[in-house]
Amino acid sequence: MSDTVRVDLAGRSYDVRIGFALLERTAAEAEGLLKREVVPVVADANARAHHGERLAKSLADGGHRVEWFEVAPGEAAKSWEVLQRLTDWLLELGVERSDNVVALGGGVVGDLTGFACAILKRGCGFIQVPTTLLAQVDSSVGGKTAINTAAGKNLVGAFHQPSLVLADLDCLATLPERELRAGYAEVIKYGILGDADFFAWCEDNGRRVVEGDVAAQLHAVRTSVEAKAAIVAQDEHETSGRRALLNLGHTFGHALEAETGFSDRLLHGEGVALGMVLAARYSARRGTLSAEDAARITRALDSAGLPSEIAALGLDADGTRLAQHMRHDKKASGGNVPFLLLQGIGDAYLDKSVDLADIAAFLDEQLRG
Amino acid sequence: MSDTVRVDLAGRSYDVRIGFALLERTAAEAEGLLKREVVPVVADANARAHHGERLAKSLADGGHRVEWFEVAPGEAAKSWEVLQRLTDWLLELGVERSDNVVALGGGVVGDLTGFACAILKRGCGFIQVPTTLLAQVDSSVGGKTAINTAAGKNLVGAFHQPSLVLADLDCLATLPERELRAGYAEVIKYGILGDADFFAWCEDNGRRVVEGDVAAQLHAVRTSVEAKAAIVAQDEHETSGRRALLNLGHTFGHALEAETGFSDRLLHGEGVALGMVLAARYSARRGTLSAEDAARITRALDSAGLPSEIAALGLDADGTRLAQHMRHDKKASGGNVPFLLLQGIGDAYLDKSVDLADIAAFLDEQLRG
Repeated sequence: MSDTVRVDLAGRSYDVRIGFALLERTAAEAEGLLKREVVPVVADANARAHHGERLAKSLADGGHRVEWFEVAPGEAAKSWEVLQRLTDWLLELGVERSDNVVALGGGVVGDLTGFACAILKRGCGFIQVPTTLLAQVDSSVGGKTAINTAAGKNLVGAFHQPSLVLADLDCLATLPERELRAGYAEVIKYGILGDADFFAWCEDNGRRVVEGDVAAQLHAVRTSVEAKAAIVAQDEHETSGRRALLNLGHTFGHALEAETGFSDRLLHGEGVALGMVLAARYSARRGTLSAEDAARITRALDSAGLPSEIAALGLDADGTRLAQHMRHDKKASGGNVPFLLLQGIGDAYLDKSVDLADIAAFLDEQLRG
Repeated sequence: MSDTVRVDLAGRSYDVRIGFALLERTAAEAEGLLKREVVPVVADANARAHHGERLAKSLADGGHRVEWFEVAPGEAAKSWEVLQRLTDWLLELGVERSDNVVALGGGVVGDLTGFACAILKRGCGFIQVPTTLLAQVDSSVGGKTAINTAAGKNLVGAFHQPSLVLADLDCLATLPERELRAGYAEVIKYGILGDADFFAWCEDNGRRVVEGDVAAQLHAVRTSVEAKAAIVAQDEHETSGRRALLNLGHTFGHALEAETGFSDRLLHGEGVALGMVLAARYSARRGTLSAEDAARITRALDSAGLPSEIAALGLDADGTRLAQHMRHDKKASGGNVPFLLLQGIGDAYLDKSVDLADIAAFLDEQLRG
């Protein structure tokens, strides 16, 4: 069984299929997209070990043969060097503009593969097969692709939409619990930024999602993808400000990730969870959100096992230093860093008037706990 | 004085300004596009030596300061290594999505800079200031950007439209005559592929263009840019087949360039000139073009000082080997190489039924002279 969410973009619309045992039906789900015998699949070692066989068997049953490009797990694969090796490999395979490359893995594999496909012969197709909760509800949908550079994460990339997304919830069963929790931060984000009812559902059911209840996971993923698809359809290239709402918690979170060296010390989703708490509390400090709503957000994240207090991180940095990390935001314009703040649960807005010195003072308070 | 041709693309329209002393007015022409004091300019050493001072002075008068990124002249600059250095440099300068980078030079500089801007933070703006005839009439307009890879030319890139194109005809005065002639091949191409009247004008005035008559150059550049703008507006991403018409002569020409190692032995425009003669003669062989029209095309190129007989190249290759170079065409689909052929002067069409073995036999005849 599977549900389908359509991402509606003039000339580039595509389906996100969400369900169980989708990998066993890859060839059928991708009908019309795989025109040659050879199907290039990019995967990280974990995703290949857990799900590669199911994928390869389904494609073999459909008359295809998989060629693998395996990358080491982790952010290091989003590099110039791997990008160049990957595009050389795709060119050697004779991949054409009308072909589709498969990305099997989490956000790293999807971002890397999508970017390679964005620039291969000025653009070929790709199919996202996200295997983590974070990739299923966020990075695999919407066409943001990128690699990292010496100057920071995701600073070189492209908007390039996939031809199809297959979100197989069976993949979540093999995911480490910490990664599942981190992915859940992006789920509850959709409630906090734009859907008070879904936030209330998350308050009641968040624990079920992170503890492996598949019915709760299906509802969480479908609702998240629907929310993301609607926003992307309104603002594909992040020009109107609408898509920027998806960055709720990301500016604060990014600073925390940078300070902890983008390491296992703080996963991206954990940074986003902390970032959303900070966005809520900063909104309360400015008087746009009630203290009670900020506390509700904190509790909802905490009860799903996500970090909610930066004082507990034991950072060796003050607020000014954290604010420094925010200056290089990609969405910066005219030197100003836009902040996503809240004027209610389910009602985020972009505030361009935030003073980084005030952010630093606020962070100093938070760091003291 | 200058003429303006508008490239009409939903949401991404821009002007191509064609005229004299445009570089002296860069700041005024680019009004609204340069929001910061620092303006990053990418240039090859020749373009900077000949035109850098005019550009920098105009920008200084407008309150700007130029930061230069200089590349060595030639195709070697369209590499992964230079691309990475260029994007790192732009990130260091703090270039944002809403900023514009200036590309001063020929096709190499424009392709490299355009591609870097296509992927910098998923896309920032750029201004093309083409200094060669070839770049003014072809590569600076239409948004094709790319670098070369081990597998071939332009195999990694993006469609990314500039914000503005400034085609200053004064730049042509310092261009070596051979480069001017090579650029003229792309001018007459517009007549051959779609405009019989312009082809007739070229028959009468081609010599004036390559000998430096500025009135003839103005007419040639404006007519070429108008033709290209119309085609790009109809088929920006080369999906309908319309834009493919611009590749007239390029499949044959590419094989000749590959065989001569993409060296000074055969400039790109010279390859295109030979390629158009071959496309015309092959069309005559298939009976879609009269032998007389094929001869007219040959004469028109020859009288502008362009090569028109591949027998004179002294190649150490037969037709089969040349045909092999065509297999990796970016526009290939399902293993088939589409050919631009003629059913009249001013009437090119895309033929997908061409057999490479027949092309090889035809080339063997041509190589014998």
